[in-house]
Amino acid sequence: MATARVNPPRRGRPGYDLESLLAVAVKVFNERGYEATSMEDLSRGLGITKSAIYYHVASKDELLRLAVARALDGLFEAADEAGAMEGRAIDKLEHLVRRSVHVLVDRLPFVTLLLRVRGNTKVERQALARRREFDHLVSELVRQAEAEGDVRPDVDPAVASRLVFGLVNSLIEWYRPRGGMGADALAEAVCKIAFDGLRQDATGT
Amino acid sequence: MATARVNPPRRGRPGYDLESLLAVAVKVFNERGYEATSMEDLSRGLGITKSAIYYHVASKDELLRLAVARALDGLFEAADEAGAMEGRAIDKLEHLVRRSVHVLVDRLPFVTLLLRVRGNTKVERQALARRREFDHLVSELVRQAEAEGDVRPDVDPAVASRLVFGLVNSLIEWYRPRGGMGADALAEAVCKIAFDGLRQDATGT
Repeated sequence: MATARVNPPRRGRPGYDLESLLAVAVKVFNERGYEATSMEDLSRGLGITKSAIYYHVASKDELLRLAVARALDGLFEAADEAGAMEGRAIDKLEHLVRRSVHVLVDRLPFVTLLLRVRGNTKVERQALARRREFDHLVSELVRQAEAEGDVRPDVDPAVASRLVFGLVNSLIEWYRPRGGMGADALAEAVCKIAFDGLRQDATGT
Repeated sequence: MATARVNPPRRGRPGYDLESLLAVAVKVFNERGYEATSMEDLSRGLGITKSAIYYHVASKDELLRLAVARALDGLFEAADEAGAMEGRAIDKLEHLVRRSVHVLVDRLPFVTLLLRVRGNTKVERQALARRREFDHLVSELVRQAEAEGDVRPDVDPAVASRLVFGLVNSLIEWYRPRGGMGADALAEAVCKIAFDGLRQDATGT
């Protein structure tokens, strides 16, 4: 979040700091769609004036940029961590999948917003470009793991990486942290299915 | 599509029949969101008057009902087919996954619309109820396959079925029939990853 303005709130100004403003904005964006949401809607939803919002951010676009950065930064930190590991690509890949599930759980509304971005504005197109960059890192890892003989050679690495991250990303559709399983158990289940499949090994066909 | 009106178009009325009206409406719903689309928007998008639309359907809701039925009917036909098979639950499940990928490919815009339904109207809530019914059929198959010893016992059947169908459903985010791989190859790749995992068996850990 290097680019967030972190000015302390002015004395006497009640209500939101940037962090809670962002949390509420992302919630509204996810409910109504980013495009369908106006600064007017946000101001009503937050119960504060538009100028109180503009005190923190220059535009709706900036809210979006900060929100998707929260998701993307988490995913790229996970990728950096995986990339810095010693050893086989398959283990890096599994680490990346596991960490990505944690990012998704910890930053669920932000990742949800990121995954729904369509590309109608510059900020959205930049987010899509960073997503493609991330996808590229993943498919490179799959390719490398296949070259090392650890990934099945009968599925194209680009397709395999889309399927595995499709599985991870589909969590936003049903996973809810409250009352649901914990992040560790969820990440474990995702890795089991993605890497070893649903089928019991003994009966593998 | 038992409930679609199949009146032949009136003589002299140019333009859309119900089928092509539905195809265009679903495209517009997917682009703008169902709620954000008015009959006015559809009329402009189609280049026909609202009364020409009302000749075919009573309301925007009816368009949605017909569209999501197209997706749901396909999925339930696949489930019926799987249910009618002789043999082990794991094979029924694999058949269902494979056929569902075909439904998704053949009816991509309809399935995309179905998967984005939120539940704000009666038609949407009915669609969600049928989706839950489908999910229940899937998790029952997983449960049965686990009881037969064919599914790994260390992932909860409800979670496993969500993950496997999350993988299937995530195809709407990236798969495009034109220029992409064929439906058979896609279904094969999905089944390989979902049932046997990305990892090469020999190195299974």
